[in-house]
Order: sequence, then C-alpha cells, then structure tokens
Amino acid sequence: MTGVPEAAARNLAAVREKKPLIHNITNFVVMNYTANALLAMGASPVMAHAPNEVEDMVSLAGALVLNIGTLSEAWVDSMLKAGRKASALNTPIVLDPVGSGATPFRTRSARRIIAETRPRVIRGNASEILSLRNADSRTRGVDSLHSVDQAADGAQALAGELQTVLAITGPVDLVTDGRRVVRVFNGHPLMGCVTGTGCTATAAIGAFLAVDPDPLRAAVTALAYFGLAGETAAQKASAPGSFMIQMLDALYTITPELLEAKCRIEIA
Amino acid sequence: MTGVPEAAARNLAAVREKKPLIHNITNFVVMNYTANALLAMGASPVMAHAPNEVEDMVSLAGALVLNIGTLSEAWVDSMLKAGRKASALNTPIVLDPVGSGATPFRTRSARRIIAETRPRVIRGNASEILSLRNADSRTRGVDSLHSVDQAADGAQALAGELQTVLAITGPVDLVTDGRRVVRVFNGHPLMGCVTGTGCTATAAIGAFLAVDPDPLRAAVTALAYFGLAGETAAQKASAPGSFMIQMLDALYTITPELLEAKCRIEIA
Amino acid sequence: MTGVPEAAARNLAAVREKKPLIHNITNFVVMNYTANALLAMGASPVMAHAPNEVEDMVSLAGALVLNIGTLSEAWVDSMLKAGRKASALNTPIVLDPVGSGATPFRTRSARRIIAETRPRVIRGNASEILSLRNADSRTRGVDSLHSVDQAADGAQALAGELQTVLAITGPVDLVTDGRRVVRVFNGHPLMGCVTGTGCTATAAIGAFLAVDPDPLRAAVTALAYFGLAGETAAQKASAPGSFMIQMLDALYTITPELLEAKCRIEIA
Repeated sequence: MTGVPEAAARNLAAVREKKPLIHNITNFVVMNYTANALLAMGASPVMAHAPNEVEDMVSLAGALVLNIGTLSEAWVDSMLKAGRKASALNTPIVLDPVGSGATPFRTRSARRIIAETRPRVIRGNASEILSLRNADSRTRGVDSLHSVDQAADGAQALAGELQTVLAITGPVDLVTDGRRVVRVFNGHPLMGCVTGTGCTATAAIGAFLAVDPDPLRAAVTALAYFGLAGETAAQKASAPGSFMIQMLDALYTITPELLEAKCRIEIA
Repeated sequence: MTGVPEAAARNLAAVREKKPLIHNITNFVVMNYTANALLAMGASPVMAHAPNEVEDMVSLAGALVLNIGTLSEAWVDSMLKAGRKASALNTPIVLDPVGSGATPFRTRSARRIIAETRPRVIRGNASEILSLRNADSRTRGVDSLHSVDQAADGAQALAGELQTVLAITGPVDLVTDGRRVVRVFNGHPLMGCVTGTGCTATAAIGAFLAVDPDPLRAAVTALAYFGLAGETAAQKASAPGSFMIQMLDALYTITPELLEAKCRIEIA
Repeated sequence: MTGVPEAAARNLAAVREKKPLIHNITNFVVMNYTANALLAMGASPVMAHAPNEVEDMVSLAGALVLNIGTLSEAWVDSMLKAGRKASALNTPIVLDPVGSGATPFRTRSARRIIAETRPRVIRGNASEILSLRNADSRTRGVDSLHSVDQAADGAQALAGELQTVLAITGPVDLVTDGRRVVRVFNGHPLMGCVTGTGCTATAAIGAFLAVDPDPLRAAVTALAYFGLAGETAAQKASAPGSFMIQMLDALYTITPELLEAKCRIEIA
C-alpha cells in the first residue's frame, strides 16, 4: 500500500464532494456527536433503526455504520436486517463492537453481526477486538484492558480468519487486513476523555468506505484524519468540553492538503 | 398580517415570562440540543414518550412537538396518542416530518400523524413537505432534493388542503397557511452543518405556539428568532462545533428589542 | 460529620485514581452529557439497559445510577433488574426520580424502584422528592414547584422513613439522612439553564458513592464538587451553551486541593 497521504487527501475531498449518505444504527450516547461529526466532515448522516424501514434506508446509503453501544435484542435485529441488505447490495459496513467482552450479550451480538453481515471493517479498542476471538478475553465496561501492541499479533490472525479489516484504536492505532499491518500515529490523549470518540472514528471510517473501495486504506486514512482533528483541537483546548467542540471544528476546517501533509502512518 | 417584528418581540417576551411547558416526542439525535435550546429560549422542555403517560404529560403542556427523526411503530403510536389528546384539549401541535419521502414508513407515518392529530404547523425541508402531497416526491436521507422556491406553489396549495400552516426551511424560509405566504430571511448557512437545527426550529415554533394563537404568526416569528440566533452565532464562530454552542448562547441573549429590530421577513 | 472539605478532596482524588465503572440506566436527553461529565471527573461511564445484560454489567460496576427521565415500562423493568442485582451485591445505587409527581406513571415508577432496589441516595428537586411522600404533591413537567426550604422538614422525615439519603437540589442544596441535615451552597443559577445538570449531579453522586462508604458524605461532597464546577464555569461563560461546555472543563480541571478550599457547606 503506497501513497497513503495522497489517498487520505483524495478520500476527504471525495466525501466533501459526494456527500455520501451514511446510515447509522448506533448507540443513544453518541448519536448527536456522531451526526455532527459526519456533517462536519462533509458527509450526510441519517440515523434510522425501525425494522420496517432499515432496508429502504440502507438502499439509499453509501455505507452502513453498526454500533452496539446501547444494544438491545430489537436493535440487534435491526442491525442484522440492515446489514444483510447492505451486504446484498455490496454496500460497505463498518462495525463498532462497543463493550464486546464486557458482557456475554455484547460478545455474542458482535459475533452474530459479523457472521451474518460480513462487515468490511471492525473498529474497537484492543479488548473489544480480542474478545471477538477469544472467549476468555475480558473488557471492563467499555474501556480496554489490553494495549494495542499486546493485541497486534492476535489481530492480524483474526483479521485473516474473519476476512475483514480490523482497526484497533489506542495511543497508536493498528489496522490490519491479516496480510498488511498499518500503524496510525495521529491522535491526542484528550480523545480518551470524550465519550464517543471511538464510535465517531468508526463513523468516519464509514464515510471513507463510501468513497474508497479498499477497506484497509479507507480505515487508515479515516483514522489519520480523525486523529489529526484531535491534534488540531488540542492546540486550542486543554480540557474535554472545549476539546470535543474543537474536534468538530477541526473535522470541518482540515483541508485535504493539510491532511496529506500531517498524516503520520507506518506500514509494517 | 401586519406588525410581525412587534409580534416577534412580544412572543419572545411571553415565552420568557410564562415559561410554557413544551412536551416533545422527538428523535434521539436531537433530544439534548432541543432541550437546551428550549431552555435557552426561556421555555420549559419535557421529553416523554411512554404510552402510559403521554396523555397526562401533554395535559400539562402549552404545546406538543412531534418529530419522526428516529421513528418506530411504538413511538408513532405514542405520538398519535399524545396528539389526539392535545387536539381534544385544543393544545397546539407542531410536526416535524423528518425524512418523509425517504422511506415509505416515514411518509406513511407523517401522513397518519397529520390525519389523526391535526397539527397547526408542519415544518420541514422542501422535499419533506412536498412528500406529504405527492407520492412520487423523493427525499435523500433527511436532506432536501428540492429548493424552497420550487416548493412554494405546491406548499400553498397543500397548506389549504391540509388546513394547516406549512413552514419550509432553507436558505430562505417560506411559511404559508394556504392564503398568505411569508418569507423569512433570517438565518445562516452554518445552520445546515449542525444536526438538529431544523428539529430545533420546529421546537422553537412549538414554544411560540404556546403563547400566540395565530399559528402562521407563531411560525414566522419563531423562525425569524431562530434564524437571528444563527446570524448572531456566525459572528462569533466559523465552524460547526463552536457555532452550535454559540447558537444556544444567542437564543439566550437575544432580547425582544433586538429581535424586533433584526427580524427580516416579506409578506407576499 | 466533620472534615467534609477534606472528604471532598479525598473522594475526588479517589475517583480519579480508581476510575470506578459507573453503570447508568438513564434518560436519552442527558446520556451524552452525563457520560462526558463522568469521564471529565475521572470515572468510567457505561450506559446499558438491555434486560439480558444489566445484571452482568452492574456486577462490574462501582455504582449504579438509575434515572427515569424518559422512562417506559421496559426501561423501568431493566432498572428494577439491575437494581435488585446491585442490592444483592451491596453495590450502591443512586436514583433520580425525574418528573416524579408530574404524572402518575412517574410517581408510581419512582416509588417502585425505591421499594424494590433500596437506593442509598435519591436526588431530585423539591417537588420530585416531596412527591415520593405525598400523593397530592405536584410537579410541573420536570421543574420544581417547591423551594428547597419548603421541603426541608418533609425531606428529613421522609429520609428516615425510607432509610435513605435524600438530596434536594436548588439554589441551595439540602442533603439529609433523616438524622443529619447538610446544606451545600456551591452552585450557580446558570446550571438551571442547561438540561441534565440535575441528572449529571446524580451521576456525580454515583461516582462518589463508588469510593465513599458513607452515602450522606458522598452526596454532600459530590454536590459541592458539582456546584463548584458551575461556579468555575460561570467565571468563563455567561450564557448556557458556553456554560455547559465550561462545566465539563471545570469538572476536569478542579483539583482536590481547590475543592477542599472552595467547598461551602453547613451542617445543621
């Protein structure tokens, strides 16, 4: 994979030009922030979960974002319905298995969504991603007990098994399709003090999947962009309230040129 | 309709003095922002959707705001129940048919709510409003495919048929009761970069309906006030995160006198 | 109860060091703000309401926060299930009976949660708290019709009956376990212009309950901290949008030392 900074610039420009409709079935905590972030990026968000419309809605969308942060049986059923339709239409899906590993219901639901909808990218913290493999991996609430580095080998093997791209976010992000491993260094520690930054990174991957047919590249470039927004915000804010607002501003103001120049990745 | 700027000032002062309880059955994405906006205006918001309390709650309210942004069968049933009670009590209802035209479920639900609850005002973008008339009108996700001007004639006829006030928001807002047509020029393009500004404009109409018996005037003055908040915010912020916070501040700081002076409308 | 300022500093430091997992079953309006506030304090929030995971999740938690702001039968059932499990594990529960007294469903649900889960602290405005005692007390929407002082005597008796700590917030907060009565003077009027500040004060009590075995002291110190965040925010912001962001910043930046110095309480 070469030319990642150029691809990042291209993807951001394409999102702003095409304004892809991103269909989110996500959690109650982050719906507002995620929708605002997608708008700030240039995409067009819609949140819709009713079983009698998710197939119609996803048919209009450029990507589907599934997130189990405040899951229930009924919402998982809607995710499965929307996801199967998206798969049939070859519309890309990104899954955020929030809290997988913390409760059996979350782990089971994440695995079921993967098996039945075949997401192109799955983004989570290290514990969440490892829980998809290993029944005895544990997650504490929705926060990670594992570091990204601890997860690296396992993630690469798991991505191959699941035939998907895995994006593990943390101080350094690790993205792998089982063959290639890419690290993204953009980001800032304050991102961990704002709820839903992980979920919103997932939505950013959704927006980039809508304009880039290579899911590994879409995930890497979206995370670089999102991390750069964190870095930019941290130049103006040093506490989480102001920081989360500055992140929305940065998603809006970062240009493709700036992203190309500031993108910090390493291909293993 | 004369004296609109004076009426705008009077309505804003009345909301702040009477602090009407505004009962919202609205979508998950905008609940927080809408509640904060209503508080900033001076109104008293409550969100309540359970079938076993919506009739009790709406009986305490000065207006009912219905919004189908994240609708499901159960929530539509609650909207119908609350709406029928509000109608029986002569409590004004404003409907936001978010995404009507994008999926059959949304269009059908919006039409059913209109038929069974008789809202005094319906606010949407041009595509949403036209979808209430024309089965083949289309909406892309929750964003409009039509301009306000394209919608003007259709809207006037539709308002007459439905015997309601239609408020179509866009770069210029158009409000009509089928007889009179009023354009509101207040507003700013950044409002389109923040999720839920349309929904919150609808809630502002709800607050003004609680203090003004003329629904056309209530809608026009609320949109002028809301648009002025956008203009005021844009003087302090140039990106959507800061802008959405400044809008809340502006809703709080705009005085009736300033609104009277800055209200920009045109009666056709 | 002596040494409250020292206890406040100790509790805040303990939350930041231990990062207790706080399990919230709360309302849709405040989920995002509450989660961000808990993160800013140093705690680790999780929102989970599905009946097939609430027992698993609460087993991982340091405290359980129950809030009926947008209640429904199904959510109340989940609160009862989680609450009974928490009680069995001796995990502290704090209840926010939002709007109790406004509708029979809310009053009935609040009383049922109290009877079946035995919360250690109940926080509300004066009308909400009095509604737990007196069937004819009334609440207007979710705002109080009673002052804290009017409620003082009734609250002390009720706390004794219910064998819980009652925290009534208002211009001055009143906290009582039936025997002792403590007033907290920290706070700022702008807190009333932001939705969910009451709910978030409840969550702060949850975080402090996770590190302090004395529920009266946990409630008093959490309210002093939360009120001080309001005072700090008001030094930087004079309108509610900016204020709510500054409050998150203040929750993050207030040190244990500052809290100890600025804590303003009075023990009756």
